[in-house]
Amino acid sequence: MLGTLTTVEVERLLASEFTGRIGCHADGRTYVVPVTYAYKSGNVYCHSAEGRKVRMMRKNSDVCFEIDRVEDVGNWKSVIGEGRFHELGGREALEAMDVLIARFAELERAQERHPSYVLRASEAESSRADGRAIVLFRIQLGEKTGRFERTSP
Amino acid sequence: MLGTLTTVEVERLLASEFTGRIGCHADGRTYVVPVTYAYKSGNVYCHSAEGRKVRMMRKNSDVCFEIDRVEDVGNWKSVIGEGRFHELGGREALEAMDVLIARFAELERAQERHPSYVLRASEAESSRADGRAIVLFRIQLGEKTGRFERTSP
Repeated sequence: MLGTLTTVEVERLLASEFTGRIGCHADGRTYVVPVTYAYKSGNVYCHSAEGRKVRMMRKNSDVCFEIDRVEDVGNWKSVIGEGRFHELGGREALEAMDVLIARFAELERAQERHPSYVLRASEAESSRADGRAIVLFRIQLGEKTGRFERTSP
Repeated sequence: MLGTLTTVEVERLLASEFTGRIGCHADGRTYVVPVTYAYKSGNVYCHSAEGRKVRMMRKNSDVCFEIDRVEDVGNWKSVIGEGRFHELGGREALEAMDVLIARFAELERAQERHPSYVLRASEAESSRADGRAIVLFRIQLGEKTGRFERTSP
């Protein structure tokens, strides 16, 4: 059975996943890159080292954001959303960091593993990782489409 | 530890996964969509009902293909490849169908679940699903980049 997720199911999937993919396009090239994220009030918060995806999104802020949860070929859910890139600075960047740290601390508690991630996120407040600046940004989601397939008995 | 996958590891990940995402761009819009696929000799084989992604790839055949395997926020692998869309017809389409059916039969045997998928793939040979034509295509991969992070003890 193929179907469409309800608005509530779309929001729930966005809030429960923590990895998604950003699709961006600049200079005639399309790029899809996985990111870890925290979702809050229609925004996907991310942090990233300076690099290709950030440079592309600065050139063209119209992006696509995708998440999926795949059990197997016949059982999956996905959400695809139109998005707009906003680079964050000052207080907005610190607020985004709080959103990310709170989300990943929550995941830590659920998993009771890998405290390293939260430490890394905290270190990013110093705005340096491997000598590259850390960029905080949000993808403001517009229209979202959720789909699913279920073939389990 | 963040690192780069070797060529062998990139090929192995492409061959072992069965869902990925295509990023395409046309008419000023970027779209990322999950697909099930079979990988063979540098090509990602897919089938799809007629729809948005196929229309976009016909307009602009330069796409991006992405796969990832995420254990948790600190342990993941991903491959991102430049790709070119080729719509398949005639004997090429039948060969692509064979590649897909063989791959999903293999997954069936591994999982011993969901025989429905292979049946559905076979039915697609009739070139109709829900009244929409089925399109067979391959994404010919060019440059590929593999990355990983490992923070497990």
